Amino acid sequence: MSEILTRQDCLALDAADPLRELRNQFTLPEGVIYLDGNSLGALPAATPARVAAAIQQEWGEGLIRSWNSAGWIAQPQRLGDKIARLVGAAPGELVVADSTSVNLYKVLSAALSIAKADAPERKVILSDRENFPTDLYIAQSLCAQHGLTLELTSAAELQARLAGGADIAVLMWTQVNYRSGQMLDMARVTALAHAAGALTIWDLAHSAGAVPVDLKGAQADFAIGCGYKYLNGGPGAPAFAWAHPRHADRFWQPLSGWMGHAAPFRFDTDYRPAQGVSRYLCGTPAVLAMSALECGIDTLLAAEPLGGMAALRAKSLQLSRLFIDQVRQRCAAHALPLASPLDDAQRGSQVSLAHNEGGYAVMAALIERGVIGDFRAGASSEAEPDLLRFGFTPLYTRFVDVFDAVTALAEVLDSGEWRQARFNQRAAVT
Amino acid sequence: MSEILTRQDCLALDAADPLRELRNQFTLPEGVIYLDGNSLGALPAATPARVAAAIQQEWGEGLIRSWNSAGWIAQPQRLGDKIARLVGAAPGELVVADSTSVNLYKVLSAALSIAKADAPERKVILSDRENFPTDLYIAQSLCAQHGLTLELTSAAELQARLAGGADIAVLMWTQVNYRSGQMLDMARVTALAHAAGALTIWDLAHSAGAVPVDLKGAQADFAIGCGYKYLNGGPGAPAFAWAHPRHADRFWQPLSGWMGHAAPFRFDTDYRPAQGVSRYLCGTPAVLAMSALECGIDTLLAAEPLGGMAALRAKSLQLSRLFIDQVRQRCAAHALPLASPLDDAQRGSQVSLAHNEGGYAVMAALIERGVIGDFRAGASSEAEPDLLRFGFTPLYTRFVDVFDAVTALAEVLDSGEWRQARFNQRAAVT
Repeated sequence: MSEILTRQDCLALDAADPLRELRNQFTLPEGVIYLDGNSLGALPAATPARVAAAIQQEWGEGLIRSWNSAGWIAQPQRLGDKIARLVGAAPGELVVADSTSVNLYKVLSAALSIAKADAPERKVILSDRENFPTDLYIAQSLCAQHGLTLELTSAAELQARLAGGADIAVLMWTQVNYRSGQMLDMARVTALAHAAGALTIWDLAHSAGAVPVDLKGAQADFAIGCGYKYLNGGPGAPAFAWAHPRHADRFWQPLSGWMGHAAPFRFDTDYRPAQGVSRYLCGTPAVLAMSALECGIDTLLAAEPLGGMAALRAKSLQLSRLFIDQVRQRCAAHALPLASPLDDAQRGSQVSLAHNEGGYAVMAALIERGVIGDFRAGASSEAEPDLLRFGFTPLYTRFVDVFDAVTALAEVLDSGEWRQARFNQRAAVT
Repeated sequence: MSEILTRQDCLALDAADPLRELRNQFTLPEGVIYLDGNSLGALPAATPARVAAAIQQEWGEGLIRSWNSAGWIAQPQRLGDKIARLVGAAPGELVVADSTSVNLYKVLSAALSIAKADAPERKVILSDRENFPTDLYIAQSLCAQHGLTLELTSAAELQARLAGGADIAVLMWTQVNYRSGQMLDMARVTALAHAAGALTIWDLAHSAGAVPVDLKGAQADFAIGCGYKYLNGGPGAPAFAWAHPRHADRFWQPLSGWMGHAAPFRFDTDYRPAQGVSRYLCGTPAVLAMSALECGIDTLLAAEPLGGMAALRAKSLQLSRLFIDQVRQRCAAHALPLASPLDDAQRGSQVSLAHNEGGYAVMAALIERGVIGDFRAGASSEAEPDLLRFGFTPLYTRFVDVFDAVTALAEVLDSGEWRQARFNQRAAVT
């Protein structure tokens, strides 16, 4: 455990933080400490004007002409090239389209199309028992369609399972677990999967914009990711999809809409996929939503002159370590087992604390005090506890925010105020 | 042919038009006559402020809390209920989600899931040779996956084909053809399909908000439609999907994302579809895009006290008839065969004129004069000519706009200005 930092120490850390100016890119509400950027990123200050221009000038004035004059038609590739810079991919390798779930359907189909050609005897999709449910649901659908088996394992058992993995067609994993924040070493796991002859799909929902990702360096096969978490693209923002160039002209995906056609404006009767990852496209691009997403991506690219994702990662780890230390020191009277890895190398950009007695109410009481994290129910067991989740987004989270959040947590727990009935009136929370 | 109307007559028609105030709901650029609402609807005046509020208050201030407090989570159903009023469906029968192409994949899969259970020997999907390509591409994908055949026919041959239709699983048709504007009688064709034992899928891309649609009255089985054409939802707006209640708790669709789960926030490991059409949902709803779409839908619902879709249809037919008459009278020196049905009952809300010699250049010259329609290339044959398309959206198109558009067309043709090289520099146009 580190020395005990005071609030003054945290203010000093903020003052010395080389990334401190990046926070000015965001519009954050007064009186709120926002520790839920892992669920929905905060609003970039540039977004309202950019979307207003897309609506009023491009749509309102330009009307149909803006497909060309405002570059709407090239948005999926243009934004894809920007995201590529954040995840270790090259221009032309990544496109923005649809939702994360829809894109997972495409990339899993794509991987299966290649596995079927190269190794038709492999019948297993291997994934994480604790994967985000939508990933499992999409895999279940494709397993039912293709006569495959979805087998679930854990990060701890993964290496042993891959060692005997001659039956595995595809390893599909979310690099940073949405509950615990546990992060896998993509290069190492990809190498193990490849050694077993399996293809890899990486869900970067909690990685892209949160931790350095090097898809090409890891020799990964396929990837998808989310636009509304660490990319700050706004609620329900479009998602992205990537394929390694060695697969990009070869894979098949079933959502064969006109925008993924080799020549969409020839209006041919027969489908012919576009070159490369543009075949991931399906329907007409979501222009307005992509305008907002681009502003979000730009908040991350603004960190490039300051060291980019490596610098953001260093600060993220400082923030999450500070949070862990402060909770240990200042909430020691309460049972709050750490549900995230203590080892920096295995921790994404969030920290989860177990609280089976009243996690939902504790979070509700925190939110009333202006500290916004979120709650994820478990099986209320030791193996899968109820969780308080706190996300740290180095673009806009300050060290003093961490200190003040722990102050609020300590007060909520010390006072027992969370035991009041009003804090336990559950509503759906994403 | 009707009597020749003068510009003064058209102004008088506008002054007497009971729907004339509906135009004030839109922000239209100065100096433009917009006849392309069949491709991209115009900007509602309410949209910029509504989207700004969704961005600044709901996202910026409310952050993650807005999933509940701003009702984001219920948007797909709430907007679906509004669209239902325009297409003869009941509340709870229709949802907004994803793109038209993605939704077609879902509804075609849904129809096939039912056909497979009830009539597994039927192996044909029947569609329109001139259907919008994305519909054919999606059907080709599903045919390849399910071992089915996509058979293409024409509206003229449809009745005879259905009469011998014991092999047809699903009839998939776009009610109003995107090229010719030809409209099918949904009730009659659905009855023919049902008599043959086939299910029906109606693509309402050029119907919803353009012509009265009565899905329930027609006993249709499945339908989809587009948000960015006559619904004025903005470029790439989310689309919608419907199922007749007799199928709604029974169909399967493969895009089994978490938002279509019976209990998304239980984070169960196994997929269990939601009741009814909510199982069409897949990923996280596109909140910002849906905020814009809702303003567009509201511009149509504002016509309800004035007679709703029936009144809009009456004006739409007046507009398209006026256009046809004016072109015949004032462009008589030029070969411009009508490529849309002359019979009102068979014509949607657009008029297409054939121009094989230089359709693209003629449209480019018109656009330079501020008259915006669009161009759709054909095989440049008599059977499938190049087309100039003009859409008439009675919410904002005036009779004098029709007159002035024909004036511009006559001038472009009479002057021969479209023969200048600069008008033939093609760019992609959606």
